[in-house]
Order: sequence, then structure tokens, then C-alpha cells
Amino acid sequence: MTRATLLTITMPTGAPEAGDPGFVVSDFDAPQVRVTDLAVTRGDGVFETIAVIGGHPQALEPHLARLAHSAALLDLPDPALDVWREAVRAGVADYLTRNGDRDAELYAKLVYSRGVEGSGAPSGWLFVDQGEDFSRARLGIRVVTLDRGLRHDVAETSPWLLAGAKTLSYAVNRTAQREAVRRGADDVLFVSSDGYALEGPTSNVVTLADGVVRTPNTDQGILAGTTQAAVFDFFEQRGLRTEFAPLTLDDVTAADALWLVSSVRQAAPVTHLDGREYPVDAALTAELNAYLLARTE
Amino acid sequence: MTRATLLTITMPTGAPEAGDPGFVVSDFDAPQVRVTDLAVTRGDGVFETIAVIGGHPQALEPHLARLAHSAALLDLPDPALDVWREAVRAGVADYLTRNGDRDAELYAKLVYSRGVEGSGAPSGWLFVDQGEDFSRARLGIRVVTLDRGLRHDVAETSPWLLAGAKTLSYAVNRTAQREAVRRGADDVLFVSSDGYALEGPTSNVVTLADGVVRTPNTDQGILAGTTQAAVFDFFEQRGLRTEFAPLTLDDVTAADALWLVSSVRQAAPVTHLDGREYPVDAALTAELNAYLLARTE
Repeated sequence: MTRATLLTITMPTGAPEAGDPGFVVSDFDAPQVRVTDLAVTRGDGVFETIAVIGGHPQALEPHLARLAHSAALLDLPDPALDVWREAVRAGVADYLTRNGDRDAELYAKLVYSRGVEGSGAPSGWLFVDQGEDFSRARLGIRVVTLDRGLRHDVAETSPWLLAGAKTLSYAVNRTAQREAVRRGADDVLFVSSDGYALEGPTSNVVTLADGVVRTPNTDQGILAGTTQAAVFDFFEQRGLRTEFAPLTLDDVTAADALWLVSSVRQAAPVTHLDGREYPVDAALTAELNAYLLARTE
Repeated sequence: MTRATLLTITMPTGAPEAGDPGFVVSDFDAPQVRVTDLAVTRGDGVFETIAVIGGHPQALEPHLARLAHSAALLDLPDPALDVWREAVRAGVADYLTRNGDRDAELYAKLVYSRGVEGSGAPSGWLFVDQGEDFSRARLGIRVVTLDRGLRHDVAETSPWLLAGAKTLSYAVNRTAQREAVRRGADDVLFVSSDGYALEGPTSNVVTLADGVVRTPNTDQGILAGTTQAAVFDFFEQRGLRTEFAPLTLDDVTAADALWLVSSVRQAAPVTHLDGREYPVDAALTAELNAYLLARTE
């Protein structure tokens, strides 16, 4: 059995002294978080999940940039990205030294919290572990649309609603995924209260229609997708046009193909969206996933 | 310095063996939560905060009932309320034994989580500690309205949005409170996207207008208020009519007086709502708070 690596980020906002990397190895199987940490009591923090393939953390810089962006939306102090970057590398190295198995699909999960209430000191940690087996999801998933309740423009009108921040307050996302299972599906596409396709609970949506590859504008309170960017690269290399655009639910329904894309599952082709069935180009999706899994930066 | 009491709920869903109460005293100052507990990674759990005055947990049964209601909204197993009830009493007794000071205003915070990811076993804990000094807030607070982004009826149309559940995913509530401070205020009144007054991030709103005391219907995705119920009792004993009603923002603005009421701060009279100033009947509010603090059940 493999054993996860846990690092406590002792200096999440930086300024470690010479010789101190700002993180230490901790016992993954032991409790490490106080009950008054605001991550626990209020979901008051941010996170990133990074795929690690062949020992390489994928899209590390975009993930770190997004961690900092999410932190800013929550008025958290800027995370010291040099510390976090080295911690990811050290965590992966430690995991591989102890477990071997460089070919396994791993992930690194970074959590940056406002810290123990009243302390004024943010807390942080990251762990590296083996991911689930997503080989089946990469062949096809059934998706249902669910109302996200918010207008598509709340990120601009009401920034305190934190649309576009990857926070630890994901109870709604989890509940939506259970609702999908209850409806006989695997995943969710959230739709704004004014009819725009937004994103999945832990993924971005990418459509292919008339030879153009599209994803919703990120100014609609949608998390900028690190994997979605690589999906665009893949299609551009094949000569297709890509664009960010407001996508109505009708646009999505009318598309020729769609995928939910995310960092660890990579690209999951949608076979069904509510009642609508989509033919899946299995060879194309396999090539796309091979491209995504081969990324080394 | 007082020392908080922490109890780990070893049997949050019940069935402890004879002689085992289902909870144990833990070290409040030591980490007790694993980094993979879903309370930490997803805010995937529920909580209650109960005022403890003169050694009595206030409105204990309504709080326990609301814990169970929130858990049901998240599809969590039913909490074993007998275990949680006894844990509250034991936690308060332990705190008072170690710290004395029966006259201090304490609180008990109960957290019920989906547990460590993959374990299938919920986790839970509660701690008892001294509360902040809210004497100033009980004299008056400045409040701003903020858009909650959701229609007033989402609890019925879109239950996966968890309106009306007291979850650990409170990052939006915390961010809204920081936005209030940024605007020179103390607290927030959330307004639905269709113009209804909802609640504060951690309180219910109560209005007094033309001799009638009102609070918004809880079928509008509003947490049923344990303190709000006692506030209604107070006014009914004084011969005023009380009612649950849909309240538009205009209704609130036109009221003669309003309060934000919650379990630990009790009743905070609103002196300003956005630009509007309200005269505060200091004697009435003092009587109201004396009534609330004197509750022994």
C-alpha cells in the first residue's frame, strides 16, 4: 500500500530564514489541524489540486497563480509562491522515494487557510497521494444540468459571493454531485439563473461546434481552468479555432461534442447531457487525454 | 487565562456501548483533525453555536433539532442527538470545573463532519469556551445590505444550493462581513436577487413596524432562528403581535426598529441600515437582552 506524503507549510506567506525551506514533513495519518482553524470552522481558505504524472507536477505555475488569485479574492495575505512551489517538488520527491511507482497518476493538493481563529497567522499544508482511477470517466460520462442560483455576472456585481475563487467552502459542489448521482448521472454542469452554462463543480466545460472549440468567459465567475488552457493548445495544434465566449445552455445543447475537463481526471467526454445524447469520438478523446497526460510543465 | 474544553464525539451517529458515552475529552490546544477530513477539504459538514449562560446551554433542543435538519439537507447520517446532548452538558461541566466563573458568557460549538474522505465514517467534536464581549453590539450596530445573489425561493427550487442549512462552507458569509467593515459597518443584511430581506451571515433579522414584530419566512432558504423564536416570545408577552412574513427590503427600510438576533451576541439593535438611521429604544433592547440572557432552557 502506498503512503501519502504530507507537508506542513510553516511559512505560507514567506520569509523563511536561510536554511529553512518554510515547510516540514508531517505525519499524514495523524491529526494536523486544530478544531479552531478557520478552514475547519468556516471553509475559510483556498486550495488547488495538481496532477503529478511521471513525477512532473502539471501546470504548476498556472495552479500557483490561481492559488494566489483565489487568496486575493478572500483577502488572504499573498501566499509565498516560492515556498509553495518548492514544497510541491519536495512532496512529490518524498512520495516517489518512499513509494516508487513513477508511472502512477498522483496528485498534489495544496490548502491555504486563514489559520487558527484569533491567531492572525494563516496556515497551509499540502499532500501528495495516488489519484483515483479515472480511465472509465475518460471514455464517457453522463451529465445533468443544475441551477447554480446566481446570475452569470455576479463576480462583477457582488464579489463577496466569491464566484471564481477556489475556496474550501465546497458543500454546494458536493451536494450537487450527489444530486447528479441521484438522477443517474456522473457529474454536473452548473447553469446560471439567467441561462448561461458555467462550469462543473470541479471542472470546466469545453464545447466543439462547427469546428470551433469554446469555453465560457472567466469573467462570468468561472474558475480559470488550468487543464482547459491545455485543451485549447491541443485543438489549436490541430488547426481548430478556440475562443472564450458566453455560452447559453442552448449553445451547449446544440454543440457537436463536449467535455468536462479538470486537473486530475483530465478530459471526460460527455455522452449524455440531461436527455440529449452526444456521439463520442473515442479516438479524438484518447489523443486529447494522451496529450494532457504527456505535459511536463 | 481560561482553558477551553474540547470533546471528540467518537460516536456521532450513535450506538455507543453501555458505559461509553460516545465522546471523550481531547486536548483543545493540539491538532485533532486530519487534513483529509471533508470538513477541512470541502467545508462538508454542519455546525451549531449555543450560548451557555450561568452554566445553562440556551435553546439546546432547538439547536440539536437544527443540527439534525442541516445534516439531512447535506445527506449526512442522522446525528445521535442523545450523544450530542450529553456531550454539551459534559463539556460545559468540564469547562466550569476547570475554570470556575459561572457568570461568564460561554458558548458551545458543535461540528458534525462527513469525516475523513474515503472512510465512510462521519466525525464530530464540540468545544466550550468563553465568548467575545458583545456588550457594545447590544447597544447598536451599523448594517449594510448586500446581494446574496440567489432568488428568495431557491430552497424549494434548487435544494442542492443548501439555503437554510448551517454548513461549514461559510467563506461567503465571512467575506460579506469583511465587505461590511470595508463600508464602515459592523454587519450585513443579505438581500435576495429578487428584493427580499433574508438574514445576516450569522443572524436573523427582526423588524418592528406599526406594533407588529416580523421576521422573514424560513421557507425562503433562511435558517430557522433559535434566538429569533425567543425574541418573539418576549414581544408576545408584552402583547405585541408576531408573524413570519415575506419582507421586502422596502418593508425593512420602512420599519420603526430592527434587530439582528443570534445565539451568542443575542439581540443587536440596528442604528443604521445603509443610509437610513433608526432611533434605538435602549431600554426596550436592554430588557430584551436581559430576557434572552435569563433563558434557562
